[in-house]
Amino acid sequence: MDSDGAQTTIGFVGGTGPLGRGLAVRLARAGHRVLLGSRDEGKAAAAVEKLGERAAGTDLVGVTNERACADADVAFVTIPYTGQRQALPALAGPLGGKVVVCCVNAIEVDDRGPKVVRVPAGSAAEECQDLLARSRVAAAFHTVPARLLLDVGNQADCDTFVFADDEPARKAAFELATDIPGMRAIDAGPLRLSVGAEAATAVLLAVNLRYGTRAHLRVEDLER
Amino acid sequence: MDSDGAQTTIGFVGGTGPLGRGLAVRLARAGHRVLLGSRDEGKAAAAVEKLGERAAGTDLVGVTNERACADADVAFVTIPYTGQRQALPALAGPLGGKVVVCCVNAIEVDDRGPKVVRVPAGSAAEECQDLLARSRVAAAFHTVPARLLLDVGNQADCDTFVFADDEPARKAAFELATDIPGMRAIDAGPLRLSVGAEAATAVLLAVNLRYGTRAHLRVEDLER
Repeated sequence: MDSDGAQTTIGFVGGTGPLGRGLAVRLARAGHRVLLGSRDEGKAAAAVEKLGERAAGTDLVGVTNERACADADVAFVTIPYTGQRQALPALAGPLGGKVVVCCVNAIEVDDRGPKVVRVPAGSAAEECQDLLARSRVAAAFHTVPARLLLDVGNQADCDTFVFADDEPARKAAFELATDIPGMRAIDAGPLRLSVGAEAATAVLLAVNLRYGTRAHLRVEDLER
Repeated sequence: MDSDGAQTTIGFVGGTGPLGRGLAVRLARAGHRVLLGSRDEGKAAAAVEKLGERAAGTDLVGVTNERACADADVAFVTIPYTGQRQALPALAGPLGGKVVVCCVNAIEVDDRGPKVVRVPAGSAAEECQDLLARSRVAAAFHTVPARLLLDVGNQADCDTFVFADDEPARKAAFELATDIPGMRAIDAGPLRLSVGAEAATAVLLAVNLRYGTRAHLRVEDLER
């Protein structure tokens, strides 16, 4: 439900990874209709299956990416960065005019560990907006730990920055984040700053590999 | 004092801003000899003067950048990013072979607020290493709030990521961070990841401007 209690249909592009599944199950449990998409419908169904009891009683189904985009009111992009340029152009039609929440981090891992990928557009989120020129793109959920989302017996106590140039997109991403119990959304300004959250995720990954932990970022001393 | 209780002479390049003054006074209070440098020696003296009672009983003096580098065991670079390419080449000689802790964020502010500057070398820290090819560069203290450092009556309860390719540089930056009461240093891997902390600082700045706060980043659920 959004802040008005209305149900939103949320489509996930590439929702089979931990972050996609985690956000999908939390938003389904919040009362939304969720279409978890994959290039391969069987893989999408398996990802939903894997959620098991956590998705009980929710309206969460595995579909193709195309179907997820066609039926969605709002779409989430949760594919690895390396897949974005290939996956999105074909979905630009069904996503036209819709809010798209880009959760993609422009990072990759090489033999020295995680690294930040230099994106010509500036950030994965700006590239997403370029590829989906007729959509309203926000960026969020970069540093959110999937394990907190998937642990549905507990609150997902964490922060997410929300970036957008488009106000309806910012509002939609902010409200959906707030639908997840424990999560705090922080309005962090224009889409171009998404690079900060994306690059910080590479740092977090490196820290977690070094320390053998699953730490995450919090913003301290924030009061409105 | 470092972990062995030894006094280090720390020179600040461009130490007159809030972060430079904050780190300088905290490290001086930890027992180190601190040379707070500026292009203009009078400006350096005024910055020390401004610290007033907070620097009482410490060995903290205002000097030129050249003098700060020549006499330092370890140097801190705390200039705005826009000044780095101009300031550092002339200091490469006196800084040769020494540990240099780069605290520079590759960010700037335009009419839309803070933004991340794309650095050809990858990050301000990597550019610093390129400009000071014979020095051992670490990067740290990017997201540390100057106000916590300058409030010497209280602990500076905050986290800093430490990045380095050079092990002695990493160790020196880590230990100096730990000399500041309340500060936690986090080993975050190679210098190339400094871009993550630098870019995250632009996000924090934007959040603080929007919310009228002075929030900072903490790493949660980190245990060795």
